[in-house]
Amino acid sequence: MTTERTFPNAIEADAVIIGAGPVGLFQVFELGLLEVKAHIIDALAYPGGQPVELYPDKPIYDIPAIPVCTGKELTDALMKQIEPFGATFHLGQEVTEVEQQPDGRFYVCTSKNTEFLTKTIFIAAGVGAFQPRKLKVEGLEKFEESQLFYRVKRPEDFAGKNLVIVGGGDSALDWTLDFTSDTAHKAESVILVHRRDGFRAAPASVQKMKALCNQHEMQFLVGQITGYEETDGKLTAVKVTGGDAVTRSVPLDVLMVFFGLSPKLGPIAEWGLEIERKQLVVDTEKFSTSVPGIFAVGDINTYPGKKKLILSGFHECALAAFGAMDFIFPEKKVFLQYTTTSPKLHKVLGVESPNFD
Amino acid sequence: MTTERTFPNAIEADAVIIGAGPVGLFQVFELGLLEVKAHIIDALAYPGGQPVELYPDKPIYDIPAIPVCTGKELTDALMKQIEPFGATFHLGQEVTEVEQQPDGRFYVCTSKNTEFLTKTIFIAAGVGAFQPRKLKVEGLEKFEESQLFYRVKRPEDFAGKNLVIVGGGDSALDWTLDFTSDTAHKAESVILVHRRDGFRAAPASVQKMKALCNQHEMQFLVGQITGYEETDGKLTAVKVTGGDAVTRSVPLDVLMVFFGLSPKLGPIAEWGLEIERKQLVVDTEKFSTSVPGIFAVGDINTYPGKKKLILSGFHECALAAFGAMDFIFPEKKVFLQYTTTSPKLHKVLGVESPNFD
Repeated sequence: MTTERTFPNAIEADAVIIGAGPVGLFQVFELGLLEVKAHIIDALAYPGGQPVELYPDKPIYDIPAIPVCTGKELTDALMKQIEPFGATFHLGQEVTEVEQQPDGRFYVCTSKNTEFLTKTIFIAAGVGAFQPRKLKVEGLEKFEESQLFYRVKRPEDFAGKNLVIVGGGDSALDWTLDFTSDTAHKAESVILVHRRDGFRAAPASVQKMKALCNQHEMQFLVGQITGYEETDGKLTAVKVTGGDAVTRSVPLDVLMVFFGLSPKLGPIAEWGLEIERKQLVVDTEKFSTSVPGIFAVGDINTYPGKKKLILSGFHECALAAFGAMDFIFPEKKVFLQYTTTSPKLHKVLGVESPNFD
Repeated sequence: MTTERTFPNAIEADAVIIGAGPVGLFQVFELGLLEVKAHIIDALAYPGGQPVELYPDKPIYDIPAIPVCTGKELTDALMKQIEPFGATFHLGQEVTEVEQQPDGRFYVCTSKNTEFLTKTIFIAAGVGAFQPRKLKVEGLEKFEESQLFYRVKRPEDFAGKNLVIVGGGDSALDWTLDFTSDTAHKAESVILVHRRDGFRAAPASVQKMKALCNQHEMQFLVGQITGYEETDGKLTAVKVTGGDAVTRSVPLDVLMVFFGLSPKLGPIAEWGLEIERKQLVVDTEKFSTSVPGIFAVGDINTYPGKKKLILSGFHECALAAFGAMDFIFPEKKVFLQYTTTSPKLHKVLGVESPNFD
């Protein structure tokens, strides 16, 4: 005898979208045109995904008919476009469980215990959740969020502190310059540590950093963090081993590490979907994964010819939405209509049909 | 002995795009990012294709990240976006001949005798060239462009004339109202003829038309054109057969017919490409037709799951551009780069790399 699981608190849904990046947001739109309301989940606390998280202010040039926009502007435009469809956002939580039920629906549960029973799932999780690459020094992890930081949320928390910043990319250099020069949250001292005297960061930032070193405003050390010192549970210094194999002790209040972000497929890898090189395999007709009812759109999927372009994700959303109709409205025959001419779509979009005065 | 054709006047090209609608224009962009300059041909005298020709001012709601735009605005945005790539436009001409040469290139010739020898062709011809549906009355065609018109180019040419306008759609009604009421080019008289007392046109326009009839500003006849009268080679009257089977003679200076536009695949049907229900069959990896080197993007192609959406055409352009690299730069290995981060793409786009002060 099997005991069937019951989910008294689960939200009954037609569609759950995992990922609120540009492609996940546009999935709301394409489902909305077909009169499907969606729930959308994201690990981040705000919509926009990778473009907003990684490069909110950098220009994007290849969104069709938008000669240039930033990640933030792209997100704002999409948020406006999907407004008529009243999607429900469940932010700041990751999907931890997906399990198909005897009735064909999927049980979905998040890290905040939001539960769904849904007819379809759209995975628009990009390259997965982005997580900062960690500094691999045993024991150091216990100082995370007290004295060891991989992100700066409130720069003012670090004003007047003795900082050691590790890394050679833009984030490391930008924060180094910022804490050395910005009068609003100037640190007491800043030491930049990088494994070599060559940087991925913008040459102009590197120049400025070197000028500040010459003016004795800060210090730059070539080397790697190989250990640390603590007193009464407090991190007091890191050990920096230089190219000369000499290890120095560098005292500090705060250690900041900027090694870039690394994508993690995370729990998606365990849902029984066909995977090829960390990507979900889909067909190009409906962008269905190997489990009928679960679709994958955007950077997370793969098929012959796949390019990881936002504009491809948009196309995939449209076809996946039509593909999902078999699961959501199995009895209904769905036809393609055009937003320019269809009075029905005008109603769905909440706009007036242009021909009626 | 075969005589090889030579084409001393042909333009040597990497890519010829047929169709300057939104998808054809975006094909310029995707090729441009891969450093391919394109030639673009359209039967119309201006870029923009169907949205500009059929509904320049009607709103479109489903271009991703553009909550609303008109066909004209969409075209303007795309024209701006492709500006850096210096495509050459060959407008007001149709492609009449495509023939593969012994060296693998394609000879392309247009109705204006513009000739190309090109490594690749991108057919972005929508549903083909739009042509007005003709009035089928034998002999009447000889008055085309003198007294019989299917389009109004310069309304002022018809000021002060006695007009008979045929049709029941928006174009027929709009021009009827226009020539009856517009002081700039008011006609001497306007008679609207439609086969039934019911209209596809906007109800508001129909109401206005009926009000003008009540004020004796114009006339409306239910009936069909079944014949005509001429004197000295001049069209003097049309015969209108009403629902009562009575035929009346209606004198006129000018006959205008608005039966809508009908798409014609035209000569494309004769280039030896695999066709299914008037669509070009393509794969979904490179959007190649059955002839390697000829790609088809947008509404003209078909594949499993195809939806005739502009946003799908955009995606198809991107993959077709990559697919074409084997023909254009067979030796080069082409990688996907991102417009946000690639200094090379910034150079191609003519924008500054954001990291360099």
